[in-house]
Amino acid sequence: MLTYDMEKRGATPIYFYLYKCIKSDIEKGVIKPNEKLPSKRSLAEHLKISVMTVQNAYMQLMSEGYIYSKTKSGYFAHSLEIPFTVIPNKNIAAIPRKNTSEGDKYFIDFRDNNINTDIFPFSVWSGVIRKVLGEYGGETLKKLPNAGVKKLREAIAGLLYRFRGMEVSPERIIIGAGTEYLYGLLVKLLGKDKIYAVEDPGYGKIAAVYKSEGVECRYIALDGYGLSSGELIKSDADIVHISPSHHFPTGIVMPAGRRREILGWAYSAPERYIIEDDYDSEFRFTGKPLPTMESIDTQGRVIYMNTFSKTISPSLRISYIVLPAELLERYNSSLGFYSCTVSGIEQYALAEFIDGGYFERHINRMRKAYKTKRDLIIKQIKDSPLGEKATILEEDSGLHFIIKLKTDLNDREIIGMVKVRGINISCLSQYGNRQEGMQNSMFIINYSGIDMDCMAKAVEILADTVNHP
Amino acid sequence: MLTYDMEKRGATPIYFYLYKCIKSDIEKGVIKPNEKLPSKRSLAEHLKISVMTVQNAYMQLMSEGYIYSKTKSGYFAHSLEIPFTVIPNKNIAAIPRKNTSEGDKYFIDFRDNNINTDIFPFSVWSGVIRKVLGEYGGETLKKLPNAGVKKLREAIAGLLYRFRGMEVSPERIIIGAGTEYLYGLLVKLLGKDKIYAVEDPGYGKIAAVYKSEGVECRYIALDGYGLSSGELIKSDADIVHISPSHHFPTGIVMPAGRRREILGWAYSAPERYIIEDDYDSEFRFTGKPLPTMESIDTQGRVIYMNTFSKTISPSLRISYIVLPAELLERYNSSLGFYSCTVSGIEQYALAEFIDGGYFERHINRMRKAYKTKRDLIIKQIKDSPLGEKATILEEDSGLHFIIKLKTDLNDREIIGMVKVRGINISCLSQYGNRQEGMQNSMFIINYSGIDMDCMAKAVEILADTVNHP
Repeated sequence: MLTYDMEKRGATPIYFYLYKCIKSDIEKGVIKPNEKLPSKRSLAEHLKISVMTVQNAYMQLMSEGYIYSKTKSGYFAHSLEIPFTVIPNKNIAAIPRKNTSEGDKYFIDFRDNNINTDIFPFSVWSGVIRKVLGEYGGETLKKLPNAGVKKLREAIAGLLYRFRGMEVSPERIIIGAGTEYLYGLLVKLLGKDKIYAVEDPGYGKIAAVYKSEGVECRYIALDGYGLSSGELIKSDADIVHISPSHHFPTGIVMPAGRRREILGWAYSAPERYIIEDDYDSEFRFTGKPLPTMESIDTQGRVIYMNTFSKTISPSLRISYIVLPAELLERYNSSLGFYSCTVSGIEQYALAEFIDGGYFERHINRMRKAYKTKRDLIIKQIKDSPLGEKATILEEDSGLHFIIKLKTDLNDREIIGMVKVRGINISCLSQYGNRQEGMQNSMFIINYSGIDMDCMAKAVEILADTVNHP
Repeated sequence: MLTYDMEKRGATPIYFYLYKCIKSDIEKGVIKPNEKLPSKRSLAEHLKISVMTVQNAYMQLMSEGYIYSKTKSGYFAHSLEIPFTVIPNKNIAAIPRKNTSEGDKYFIDFRDNNINTDIFPFSVWSGVIRKVLGEYGGETLKKLPNAGVKKLREAIAGLLYRFRGMEVSPERIIIGAGTEYLYGLLVKLLGKDKIYAVEDPGYGKIAAVYKSEGVECRYIALDGYGLSSGELIKSDADIVHISPSHHFPTGIVMPAGRRREILGWAYSAPERYIIEDDYDSEFRFTGKPLPTMESIDTQGRVIYMNTFSKTISPSLRISYIVLPAELLERYNSSLGFYSCTVSGIEQYALAEFIDGGYFERHINRMRKAYKTKRDLIIKQIKDSPLGEKATILEEDSGLHFIIKLKTDLNDREIIGMVKVRGINISCLSQYGNRQEGMQNSMFIINYSGIDMDCMAKAVEILADTVNHP
């Protein structure tokens, strides 16, 4: 039985102290890969703490990928050998994304990553804009600092500290009109002669932007822990673009060990950089999020980036990057002449929205609403005839999850059959880019923008399709 | 004496008919280069029309570069041999632009191209934003069409028709967050393997953006009519970026003949394009502006671009390009995935501002205010001891003019001497990029943002500097 001296925890909360002890034992190999952990009840009795405390510690370890659970068997330490089988499927052409939310052709669209703007406190937002118009007046018309308005960069620095425990000086933050614009800026900063690695499968626009910037792009496969560090090391990439806090489309949260391996890759040669795309990190539903790679980076090799498109609205074009000191200097001397791409009024409004505490309240409300919505959808699937043909893969994070169907039909057939009945859905293999071409019956449910009234019918059609081929 | 049958003019206004007749005679060589035109009075008597009508026709011909005037000698047909001497000066390093309007170090800043935001009807603008917040509500949060909001593209198409006589369908308009962003988009569209030609001297940021996009850049010299078509033909450029309606810093308005020569260059090989940067065209003070190159282009080789930074505020990051049909198709298939970089609320607000007629009223008001300001400054210079040492070069257009000083000091000395006395000013040769290194005592007066209360002192210091070396 695991034995830790709980008295030594000092001011640390009990659950967090226990989590740290177990994590350290897994890292040191004291607890072996796939070794079973004591049950929550027995460990609680052994350490004279409550079951709930052990439960919280286990949840945190799960959320960071240190342990996994098997139904009715308990908890086990993770092993680096478990692969997350993602096999790209070249037979299904990538369906081009719609330009606008036309939505006419489908009664439900699981490809639509629009956020639920009903939850957004529009009256607060419009109040903040009115305040800016009234109080800042003509000041909002003046030429903007190229890296963005000081007040907004300070507000973001505060947000990063409170949400992500990051200590970032506002000078290191560069504001830009959307992540796609910032990817382009990073290519100019890091060099067009560099080779950029992206996740495979992954969010298609990332590779599309790199390609249209004219740089070489490598697709790196994932395993159960996210981007394979082994494949990355074997590649000739200089820059790697990853989303460790929640990968699209697999939903993988990259565990601490893998993060360290990728940092190690960056440190092992000069001019290697990691772009940490934290686009979705606000929507972690349980446990404390893992620290960002930026905050554990000691050599200035991580560029952190995030956006307000997912948290506020896709029509608000405000994103940002955080540059390490050396790159910041390079940026200021070679690219500092670029004018800021975000209008003054919206920069001031967002700063006020953050400083007024509205942003954090909004995130908490969204997190609750999305968790409820997601739980409801998963329950609806499990309780339906689809339930026994479906496995839900998710890590309590982000605005989408994966449904794996037991079926003889291939991915293309499923997509085609439900499409004619009004459902737009995509499969995991569509997001793969290498040649190995196969299919794995995994489909992506983007749930943030969908109408719950349509779910019952959608579940029925999916069940129907899987059961009567 | 020139003789035209005024009865043949049909519905055309008399002045415009006369202008067209004379223009045609100059183009055909009936009127020879440097030939003197009849005086306004004698031509009016001869044709039995009013002196004012002849005056208007002559003004239009002047503004398009067909004729020029010599004080007390009258009007003459232009000759292609008159060079506008612009000699780049490598000895003066390009002074980096300030990031923000710090303005502390100088009591007057002739390098500052900030617009006069006092003239901007901020209350109308903020009213329009309030209206959008109230009437559009949550609609403003929805995902935007990638090329920009339809309503704004329609409003811009209307504006182009009313201001510039251009017939452009809204589908051809792509909205983006500032011209620098759009230059980058054009490089992706036209190709990184192409060679881009820019004006020398010219607005430094244009070449800087092309260079940071990693494409090859050629500097093409100017003569009295703007970018030299001869030099362009001799170069290996594929794309040329010009501002024919008002060049920075020389202020040259490219005459019709030169525009046709450059169109001819584009037509003479496939994949040659002209980027017509019309950044400043709203501020033409007299005469009808020349038609845009886009509107006389018959082969789809002109990309028109313009911005609202100069007309509304530098903090409003909204610019646009108008693509010819073939490039539009290419754009949609290869770059159509790029998200729009301008936020929804500001796109709707600008559309309302244009549709409500506020934009046009604002431009008229600004044009008057700037003309008054410019005339006042020029008068102040002429009436001062500086007057006899200075020649003002301007073409009744744009937000800057050139002052040529009679002095034994070189440009660097002048700039340094006035700088210590609180004046920030730049010289024409600083904007040149080729090696020929010399100076020509021409200085640029950006007057739009300066404080008139400081002008008297600035004129005194300049006179002092020139007169007492």
